[in-house]
Amino acid sequence: MNDLSKQKIEQSIENRKKLHHRFFENSDTYKHFLELEKTAFKDGGISKKHKELMALSISIVTKCEPCIEWHTEQALLNDAIDSDFFETIDVAIEMGGGPAGAYARFALNCLDYFKAQHSK
Amino acid sequence: MNDLSKQKIEQSIENRKKLHHRFFENSDTYKHFLELEKTAFKDGGISKKHKELMALSISIVTKCEPCIEWHTEQALLNDAIDSDFFETIDVAIEMGGGPAGAYARFALNCLDYFKAQHSK
Amino acid sequence: MNDLSKQKIEQSIENRKKLHHRFFENSDTYKHFLELEKTAFKDGGISKKHKELMALSISIVTKCEPCIEWHTEQALLNDAIDSDFFETIDVAIEMGGGPAGAYARFALNCLDYFKAQHSK
Amino acid sequence: MNDLSKQKIEQSIENRKKLHHRFFENSDTYKHFLELEKTAFKDGGISKKHKELMALSISIVTKCEPCIEWHTEQALLNDAIDSDFFETIDVAIEMGGGPAGAYARFALNCLDYFKAQHSK
Amino acid sequence: MNDLSKQKIEQSIENRKKLHHRFFENSDTYKHFLELEKTAFKDGGISKKHKELMALSISIVTKCEPCIEWHTEQALLNDAIDSDFFETIDVAIEMGGGPAGAYARFALNCLDYFKAQHSK
Amino acid sequence: MNDLSKQKIEQSIENRKKLHHRFFENSDTYKHFLELEKTAFKDGGISKKHKELMALSISIVTKCEPCIEWHTEQALLNDAIDSDFFETIDVAIEMGGGPAGAYARFALNCLDYFKAQHSK
Repeated sequence: MNDLSKQKIEQSIENRKKLHHRFFENSDTYKHFLELEKTAFKDGGISKKHKELMALSISIVTKCEPCIEWHTEQALLNDAIDSDFFETIDVAIEMGGGPAGAYARFALNCLDYFKAQHSK
Repeated sequence: MNDLSKQKIEQSIENRKKLHHRFFENSDTYKHFLELEKTAFKDGGISKKHKELMALSISIVTKCEPCIEWHTEQALLNDAIDSDFFETIDVAIEMGGGPAGAYARFALNCLDYFKAQHSK
Repeated sequence: MNDLSKQKIEQSIENRKKLHHRFFENSDTYKHFLELEKTAFKDGGISKKHKELMALSISIVTKCEPCIEWHTEQALLNDAIDSDFFETIDVAIEMGGGPAGAYARFALNCLDYFKAQHSK
Repeated sequence: MNDLSKQKIEQSIENRKKLHHRFFENSDTYKHFLELEKTAFKDGGISKKHKELMALSISIVTKCEPCIEWHTEQALLNDAIDSDFFETIDVAIEMGGGPAGAYARFALNCLDYFKAQHSK
Repeated sequence: MNDLSKQKIEQSIENRKKLHHRFFENSDTYKHFLELEKTAFKDGGISKKHKELMALSISIVTKCEPCIEWHTEQALLNDAIDSDFFETIDVAIEMGGGPAGAYARFALNCLDYFKAQHSK
Repeated sequence: MNDLSKQKIEQSIENRKKLHHRFFENSDTYKHFLELEKTAFKDGGISKKHKELMALSISIVTKCEPCIEWHTEQALLNDAIDSDFFETIDVAIEMGGGPAGAYARFALNCLDYFKAQHSK
């Protein structure tokens, strides 16, 4: 992985962790959002793994790199395997064309990064 | 369902059917797209049902009504049940906020429409 | 106002009212969203009027007609006057170009509609 | 063409004509936008025809129906022929996937509508 | 603030300054845009501060980092205080869900950066 | 050009090259996409140069940096000259407002980068 991709991933993680507390202390809307988020992704008729992959497909089509970083790791932690990621990218490309293909590259970089992290 | 929602659904169906042949005759890119589409949505490690729901979540977040119409019917034809649609909408709201909630209404209208059609 | 614009506004109102209960009964995520929404738009350092106009500007740039319908009425109910709407549209055009100008037309139609409704 | 597509096209035309004066009287930003628009689309190294088709491709990918209506007619008035529209749609599909295909249907409806109008 | 966030902010500032002249010399459309921009953001019934916050909310929802950088500084220079930024982010989260929350982190980084700059 | 812009361009090139093979081996959808892409951009009634500029205008309006990088080089390799790029940016600004102006800066950086590369 090239340096900038790695930097982007690590910046995204650091920003999320560091700024979480400031949002939490300053915004009741953010607190409600955290509840909403927890509810939306909990295991249901659709498993948490499939919900995270669904969110990943949206993240790729809507070109949101910090979202790609987050949902790739969450899908991985919920037992998504390589082929799940490629099939998610397939749907994203059908729904987003070439730009989805371009953002799918960042998803693969995130996948490699988190697989390396979690195998440590 | 109000009249305009029904009209939108039926226009979307009619446009797709009627214009398919013109695109097919005039565009090789369109032909490749049809192959791409078939491949992206085929049953795999992720089932066709989950892929259609994934595409539905993208359609809601990206505000694409003809896409909502199509992927709602496809998910339904691949055995998605009511709770699958509500959980898909949950993820869409997490990823798209209030506007996703607004477009989810059209998804529910499509769900009602196609359930009525297919139970006939 | 032409018939289709009026139909769109009235469909949007009807859909929101009618489907609210189904979302409420079927989705805890939706319930959290309602809390989030209430908190985000309450009077604060920025007045509710300005927050609604802010949401209207986002709605215009992101091409969300049911959102334009809702936030136009909310801004109006919180004492926004004609010049507030035109200045909001100005910012939307700066941030969204010609397409924002096109969706601003729907905002003006909504403004006329709700002014007529509330003066009855 | 089905009734709703025709209604959408005619509403878009009517809204643009009718609301132009109100924007013009109430917004200096709008006046600057009109100058910007005129300059952006004038014949240059890239012909006005190609600029209108370029704007049409953007309109399809960004799902802007009133923009599709406008730029389709402008391209037609600047001598774009059927194959120009299909090739523009090809690029839009490459850049926007299935949703671009869906909005391309509206572009074809607009093309048929304006060809019929201008041959009268 | 991490290094990449700082680099992004400073690149955005540098690019805007350095390329302004080339756009100005090569594009009449750009000149009209500058007039449009000045007009859209001038103090009116809605203050320049509120207009800049409005543009910031749009920038967050539409995932435009150089726009976030610019409008954060402009809001700050027009007397926006911390709570104004958090309330603007609240509206953005309501209108954009989780991705808006992710881009709001960049807005906070910009806020910290420019507060440090202007207190020097 | 500042360091981050250069890094972004080179990362984009490296990612595309390096990940191409993994997508190709793992995704039949991707293979169909490559066919679609080749067909969409081939010389036709609209020249390849104009199609690449069209794709560039879409890339700028939809804020896709890796797409801007790619289509700038492709347009350049198909004989687009400076004024073609400025006129393409003009249309993008008309269709995307200020954010398009911001992403146009990245397009100019890409133009400078590839002109320097290809004159070596």
